[in-house]
Amino acid sequence: MNTRDTLETPVAVVNLDRLEANIARFQQYCDQHQIANWPHSKTHKIPAIAAMQRAAGAAGICCQKLSEAEVMADAGFDQICIPYNLLGEQRLARLANLMQRATLTVSADSAETVAGLGHAARLAGRTLAVLVECDIGGQRCGVQNPEEAAALARTIAATPGLAFAGLLAYPLAPPLEAFVAGTRAILAADGISVGRVSAGSTAGMWQIHEYPSVGEYRAGMYIYGDRGTIARGAIAQQECALHVIATVVSRPTPTRAVLDAGSKALSSDISGLAGYGLILEYPDALIEKLSEEHAHVDLGSSARTPQIGERVTILPNHCCPVSNLFDQIVGLRGDAVEVIWPVAARGKLV
Amino acid sequence: MNTRDTLETPVAVVNLDRLEANIARFQQYCDQHQIANWPHSKTHKIPAIAAMQRAAGAAGICCQKLSEAEVMADAGFDQICIPYNLLGEQRLARLANLMQRATLTVSADSAETVAGLGHAARLAGRTLAVLVECDIGGQRCGVQNPEEAAALARTIAATPGLAFAGLLAYPLAPPLEAFVAGTRAILAADGISVGRVSAGSTAGMWQIHEYPSVGEYRAGMYIYGDRGTIARGAIAQQECALHVIATVVSRPTPTRAVLDAGSKALSSDISGLAGYGLILEYPDALIEKLSEEHAHVDLGSSARTPQIGERVTILPNHCCPVSNLFDQIVGLRGDAVEVIWPVAARGKLV
Repeated sequence: MNTRDTLETPVAVVNLDRLEANIARFQQYCDQHQIANWPHSKTHKIPAIAAMQRAAGAAGICCQKLSEAEVMADAGFDQICIPYNLLGEQRLARLANLMQRATLTVSADSAETVAGLGHAARLAGRTLAVLVECDIGGQRCGVQNPEEAAALARTIAATPGLAFAGLLAYPLAPPLEAFVAGTRAILAADGISVGRVSAGSTAGMWQIHEYPSVGEYRAGMYIYGDRGTIARGAIAQQECALHVIATVVSRPTPTRAVLDAGSKALSSDISGLAGYGLILEYPDALIEKLSEEHAHVDLGSSARTPQIGERVTILPNHCCPVSNLFDQIVGLRGDAVEVIWPVAARGKLV
Repeated sequence: MNTRDTLETPVAVVNLDRLEANIARFQQYCDQHQIANWPHSKTHKIPAIAAMQRAAGAAGICCQKLSEAEVMADAGFDQICIPYNLLGEQRLARLANLMQRATLTVSADSAETVAGLGHAARLAGRTLAVLVECDIGGQRCGVQNPEEAAALARTIAATPGLAFAGLLAYPLAPPLEAFVAGTRAILAADGISVGRVSAGSTAGMWQIHEYPSVGEYRAGMYIYGDRGTIARGAIAQQECALHVIATVVSRPTPTRAVLDAGSKALSSDISGLAGYGLILEYPDALIEKLSEEHAHVDLGSSARTPQIGERVTILPNHCCPVSNLFDQIVGLRGDAVEVIWPVAARGKLV
């Protein structure tokens, strides 16, 4: 029987009991508060996990790139939200194709994006649901105020092939309610209703019920957790499901160790944390630096130190890029290998 | 004809004229100074580019993981250096297999690694060349002083199946010469000679001739270049060959733009630079933040600003992780697509 100790390192492993519990716990919260759960598949990029989320009660899934959505549609998912400004002739032709086999919702924050989406919808001969992306302080994409949101909603509503479906925001933050209310008030005069309000971020996942306007939610990292999610109070360390097992390959000095997992396994995401991951067996050790294939560990504050050849378990800073760096993820039940999942939507960039 | 303007974004493109010139220029320098060129294939992970390096005169290639070396051996490369402590039963069994079809050099910095290598060599029934990795100040792997180097060299020389081949260091730095001389002096008493001295780092590639002990060199990034290599004075911007083409997908405010290339395309490597890449068309713009699928650009200091849908060309901070994030790299001759290379050794972690 394959066990975690027989896996070649570095390897990304998922504790299946924790994964299942994380999926169930958040779905239960969503059900209790009547929130439609649209989990973000970018965290795992694995159709089998998306299927677990759907089986638990998810209303649909989110994909951050059209190519990810194509993978999920290939795997039989037919309710897909792509909260991304889709632009460009080839991409819009692919969008039109995807509309033939899945019910899509997309987002837009400009008239340029809306014009392209309308073109794709007419090419597909179907109606495409479009949410207006709103910047409620996250300073990512999004219209800047209710006036801009209402103007773009009108443009969508007036575009043949498109249906104005509502508003989309990231993250979950206090300005959201006033933004939604302001937009609703402006659009009421036009007889345009704001149907759906979608918010997102794993950080805010247990506060959604405090935002009465939010009817659907996009969280990704809740299934795995990571140091960043712990720091934001959304998950406990003993609930985290994804780890990278690495081997100590060098002990150049008494206070330094080098592991065989670098930025190619853990990513360079520092996420405002101290170090590039937590070594569970040596919590006082600091992963102070990553090169591509090595983690450089400062053991100066660690009473115990590992030996060359010893295997250690790293909780990553940010789980999503780890998924994108491994071709496969190993699912463990206890110490036994139960499943090996190809990361089917890994590297899907376009 | 496919051109750069018809490629879906984000896409990693290589200017073939510059690539060829970079390969030729460094090989010429190595030839002039009688330095054996062992280019590091981790930068490109593409057998066709390794073949260009070999055709230009490289003595062999370097791979940073055994799995990368397996890919290169599959592609017919038979002189491969793996400057890595290879440990673990499965890995050593794979090493023994690889020894049947390629002449390998590996490195070690501990008796534990040497013992495993000896086991692999005896399994293979062949002699394995082992370099002692020396830490000359880089604080990565490596023995700490000539005494440790000499002790490990003796252990290698005394291990059946292994041949002590010399010393290996990273980066190229002034302590190297004294380290080598000190080790040679100690080993002379045992009748053990330090055959090869291998140094590395693209940053030092034009100073190798100032280090008389160095007979072979491992540089990787010289073929592509990037902002980090420019900052270290080893390449000029107009010589850089690898770029990521992205599309502006949002202009949320007059001073902000959002591109469709995030950390999944550019990596989060900040490399001590300002911003996560240089936008060639808008050199005063600052890529201040990356999310996975978006670059967030501050246009506050840029007199001109891009429009939604416009394509821009990004010079990455660090070219190696970019290679690892794309399944394929597009080779351009001028604006025409001449070749599309699968990144055959992408994601090879074990």
